[in-house]
Amino acid sequence: MQFDLARARADTPGVAHVVHLNNAGASLAPRAVTDAMTGHLALESTMGAYEAAERAHEAVARAHDALAALLNAHPDEIAILDSATRAWGMALSSIPLRRGDRVLLSPVEYGSNHISLLHLAERTGVSLEFLPVDDDGLVDTAALEQCLDERVKLVALAHVPMHDGLVNPVAEVGKVVRRTDALFLVDACQSVGQLPVDVRDFGCDLLVGCGRKYLRGPRGTGFLYVARDVAPRLTPPVLGLDGVEWHAGKYRLAPGARRFETWEVNAAARIGLGVAVDYARGWGVERTWQRIRSLAAGLRADLAGVPGVTVQDRGVERCGNIAVTFAGLDPFQVRAELLRAGINSWVCLDNAACHDMQQRGLGRLLRISVHYYNSEDELERLCSVLAGLTSGTKERAFV
Amino acid sequence: MQFDLARARADTPGVAHVVHLNNAGASLAPRAVTDAMTGHLALESTMGAYEAAERAHEAVARAHDALAALLNAHPDEIAILDSATRAWGMALSSIPLRRGDRVLLSPVEYGSNHISLLHLAERTGVSLEFLPVDDDGLVDTAALEQCLDERVKLVALAHVPMHDGLVNPVAEVGKVVRRTDALFLVDACQSVGQLPVDVRDFGCDLLVGCGRKYLRGPRGTGFLYVARDVAPRLTPPVLGLDGVEWHAGKYRLAPGARRFETWEVNAAARIGLGVAVDYARGWGVERTWQRIRSLAAGLRADLAGVPGVTVQDRGVERCGNIAVTFAGLDPFQVRAELLRAGINSWVCLDNAACHDMQQRGLGRLLRISVHYYNSEDELERLCSVLAGLTSGTKERAFV
Repeated sequence: MQFDLARARADTPGVAHVVHLNNAGASLAPRAVTDAMTGHLALESTMGAYEAAERAHEAVARAHDALAALLNAHPDEIAILDSATRAWGMALSSIPLRRGDRVLLSPVEYGSNHISLLHLAERTGVSLEFLPVDDDGLVDTAALEQCLDERVKLVALAHVPMHDGLVNPVAEVGKVVRRTDALFLVDACQSVGQLPVDVRDFGCDLLVGCGRKYLRGPRGTGFLYVARDVAPRLTPPVLGLDGVEWHAGKYRLAPGARRFETWEVNAAARIGLGVAVDYARGWGVERTWQRIRSLAAGLRADLAGVPGVTVQDRGVERCGNIAVTFAGLDPFQVRAELLRAGINSWVCLDNAACHDMQQRGLGRLLRISVHYYNSEDELERLCSVLAGLTSGTKERAFV
Repeated sequence: MQFDLARARADTPGVAHVVHLNNAGASLAPRAVTDAMTGHLALESTMGAYEAAERAHEAVARAHDALAALLNAHPDEIAILDSATRAWGMALSSIPLRRGDRVLLSPVEYGSNHISLLHLAERTGVSLEFLPVDDDGLVDTAALEQCLDERVKLVALAHVPMHDGLVNPVAEVGKVVRRTDALFLVDACQSVGQLPVDVRDFGCDLLVGCGRKYLRGPRGTGFLYVARDVAPRLTPPVLGLDGVEWHAGKYRLAPGARRFETWEVNAAARIGLGVAVDYARGWGVERTWQRIRSLAAGLRADLAGVPGVTVQDRGVERCGNIAVTFAGLDPFQVRAELLRAGINSWVCLDNAACHDMQQRGLGRLLRISVHYYNSEDELERLCSVLAGLTSGTKERAFV
């Protein structure tokens, strides 16, 4: 079945203004998402914000149900927070860990996650180790099996890293980890909305994601999935009235993921998130993933043909995030030139991205990230602008 | 000088639609705030969200500077988070406390704060005690002086509670606490934007507030002030790339309050917050506070004259939050009737509000909260609707 690109683009006001290839940063929102948020802000302005939330209570509540449906979870397994970093950090802080416990993390883990783990290790004496990876940079499940023991209490894995197109074999890792007592925490920030994310299939205990990237939702939205049987063991560092039952001076943490939530909600963003998830489900993530994968594969091939451009992605299955470097050109300079040509991209820095970048000596790289609403024409235009840039290149001192 | 009510109301689209007396919940935003947010969402939709944030970087950065100016702080003493509850909880979690330490909290402390403290006490063995109060419900500074010793590590005080008009003598408490090594944490959620809040004058180490209440800013915005000399002693439970410096595998927490922030920002809400704070400063909080105080004093007197209405506020200096109960009428029923008459108010429950409500046997009460943009006519209308309700009252079983 032909992908209905015309409809995807008609629903996306931004494509008339810009070639948006920064979807791994934040995607262009569909009109329905922006309209829902703007409409709710107008309602707040005319009737009062609490009163507007009461009137729109179904739309406010929708995000939990929609995310649960998207992830194959129960709504009470979903907590919505203001960012994936907050969600990931709150999850980590809630896990009982102590001196001598081992925590394994992927070498492509996002910087904030990595720092939170370093910080935890420093405070608690938990030992921190990288998951074993193969020559493609993917977690090596056979080697992982060898290194698991009863001291391993947590395995943290980035499904897709922020700086590379690789897709980790998350379900295979899940199978191995589930044979132990370790908790399995998946960072699906870059994958949710891009490729199918099914918490049962992944076998994960915890999973985080955010709204603004491939889900095309609002900024300031993140979520945390907590498996129903795991939640009772977790103690969030920050509590609020929505996360507890409180009576006569006694409190009890809410039974599921809601223990991670507080009462106050950015209702407009919450509504926008629900609309975005429903919109994604309307297309079907499996279908849009096939388009992203095919667009990205074509673009990788085309980029490899541009002199002076090196595609840096690893992995076997590769997604819409494409990492490139340039002979003699700083990625910042390339990004600036692309912006002038009406093309959005992003520069990943090794201090934000990862251990992995530092290991590979990649100080910075240009991330080009495609979504299903990008057109083949847009990708051709990118290659043509890049070819012009690299052919005009003189050798420069650049590290 | 006459207060320019006409201008205040002309700037506030909501007053054409509703009598808004739920300002202690969330105030009606000035047009400038809603327009700034809506405008930024449109920009995100047409150029990409990261790209829009770059273009609007001054507006995004403004909230820190504006809050610092409002509070008499430095911008690096301000962290912006998604709610005051999160800010308060993150602050608490960052304070080094251990078994045997004493923590004092106000009996009117907000429920989420109280629960976080109960939770902390349970996990750490910290001892939790209420601040001594006088017959008006205000912190008794002489008695406080008696009960402070070197084991007291934290004093937590609500400047204004969520369910009562009392204004605690925060600067006097600050003077006493500063003679000890205890940290002084002020919850200014209900007071910031309503009455002058000056962190130097208060002598506080930490202070939290939110955007949506008397500041008339967006939902999903809270902030934390951390005194410059205190920040280095605090370790937030959740870290993000914006809160650290990270190089070659070594990280260092940001020197000031920014250690409490993560990279991701709801840029529209952040911009709206900056606009709201600047708008409040444009009027001058001292000036709007005089109007709020005078409106509330008049309304209290009028309410006391309505048969069947009891004004429950304590305190000496009283603010715009007015607590009332009704002979034979459930506050929920009164709120519903007021809504039908186009008047917004709110019901405070003892499980949300406080130890104080439970002590006084107040299961629930109606909160009427006035802002400077409310008109004398609106308050008359409220009293007239309430008089109609209470005079039509038969004795009902209501607890």
